[in-house]
Amino acid sequence: MTFVETLAAAWRGRNSLLCVGLDPDPARFPAHLQGRPDAIFEFCRDIVDATADLVCSFKPQIAYFAARRAEDQLEALIAHIHTAHPGVPVILDAKRGDIGSTAEQYAVEAFERFRADAVTINPYMGRDSVEPWLAYPDKGVILLCRTSNPGGSDLQFLDVGGGEKLFERVARLVASEWNTTGQCALVVGATFPQEIARVRELVGEVPLLVPGIGAQGGDIEATVRAGRTASGGGLMINSSRAILYAGKGEDFAGEARRVALATREAINLHR
Amino acid sequence: MTFVETLAAAWRGRNSLLCVGLDPDPARFPAHLQGRPDAIFEFCRDIVDATADLVCSFKPQIAYFAARRAEDQLEALIAHIHTAHPGVPVILDAKRGDIGSTAEQYAVEAFERFRADAVTINPYMGRDSVEPWLAYPDKGVILLCRTSNPGGSDLQFLDVGGGEKLFERVARLVASEWNTTGQCALVVGATFPQEIARVRELVGEVPLLVPGIGAQGGDIEATVRAGRTASGGGLMINSSRAILYAGKGEDFAGEARRVALATREAINLHR
Repeated sequence: MTFVETLAAAWRGRNSLLCVGLDPDPARFPAHLQGRPDAIFEFCRDIVDATADLVCSFKPQIAYFAARRAEDQLEALIAHIHTAHPGVPVILDAKRGDIGSTAEQYAVEAFERFRADAVTINPYMGRDSVEPWLAYPDKGVILLCRTSNPGGSDLQFLDVGGGEKLFERVARLVASEWNTTGQCALVVGATFPQEIARVRELVGEVPLLVPGIGAQGGDIEATVRAGRTASGGGLMINSSRAILYAGKGEDFAGEARRVALATREAINLHR
Repeated sequence: MTFVETLAAAWRGRNSLLCVGLDPDPARFPAHLQGRPDAIFEFCRDIVDATADLVCSFKPQIAYFAARRAEDQLEALIAHIHTAHPGVPVILDAKRGDIGSTAEQYAVEAFERFRADAVTINPYMGRDSVEPWLAYPDKGVILLCRTSNPGGSDLQFLDVGGGEKLFERVARLVASEWNTTGQCALVVGATFPQEIARVRELVGEVPLLVPGIGAQGGDIEATVRAGRTASGGGLMINSSRAILYAGKGEDFAGEARRVALATREAINLHR
């Protein structure tokens, strides 16, 4: 199955639009994991095992692993998800962006080395920077469109003609020209519900990855109403820190499960 | 010394604007290195040792290492450059781009783990995605502005108002607002000399990293005339494959040196 098919099956089968982001910060790990050589893997594995039936996807953020020479733990984590929780796709949040032979190397990194099902990439370098990723027909390619940080507006909100904003142009290019194979999705931050609605209008059924709820303060109801498709799907609503660090003790994974369950239910109220 | 100071000293002291890009592709290595466990390190080290007196910087491309689980060889390579060739700055070509705590992790990866002197990053997420990098006051932060690939025009060439192109806006934002600490540089592809000239006009003395000569076909004379500062500097003109793969035999490093020397001289003819 392709990423998009696996994702659609996870939306239905797990009744969830929740994506749990795996941004492991050892300084915030519970005491019993502190100092263990594979603490990053163990922390993420426990979160994954406690929440896998509640999510439509997991999204490990590669920077947290790379900063600590823990690529081996990222490989082990993704292998564990595939083995223990088949049917839950893994999005490698890497925001790569390069051209030609270099983009091919990055695709090898994400899809062959780490065995991710999808990857986030940056659209600034244009269509031919996307194509090496699309050469993997089963994989998902999730392009940055509108990001939820204050500086996101510096470029993305520029008027590129006739009142069209740069992020709208990205959405339109992806939907009308770049997504010839049906592998693409878009990142649209939760802090701007009216912009999620605008992107949904531009891209039809293309899946949207929406960071920014939970610790970043985005509104769940507004996000779901703005971004859902006619069938009540189409979204991967990401929460990272609010779930990962819900508890500080030995039962941190249980606390994470409680928050993930509540978040899934809060999302489902408005589908 | 900061990256920008080290670079300026290398421009003068080595009389060179040449940056050698280290994009190691094991399939193109000479036969005597094939299959060796540290072949990537050994290949790059030999290139570095044969060309260090001819360059203003080295630019390893991290994707080529990451695709082959060779981060340890990248660490060893950069450590070797610092030890054996002090005064030659190392630019980690990573084109990262993310926000807040994630950007901080990427900065740890580039500057603390790999000990790069500068890094390439993507401007799409705006000013606050750049700030975590600027928190390292000695380091260089090189932002994508105008890229030399065909799809580079998809977004970068959009008119963002009054005839200003998106890449011109990036150049202007960096020069007038983001580069408060003097750490920034810009990537401008060699295939568009008139655009190099336009960026130079917009950014004053800000250094430009120019890929696209050599294998990618950019014209050296046009590039130098368009991008040099009044003092005949300001450029890191990158060549990768034309130098790395100049020879296929045991003397590949000697062949690389001959091409690097000729390229430096061709550049210096027009400074």
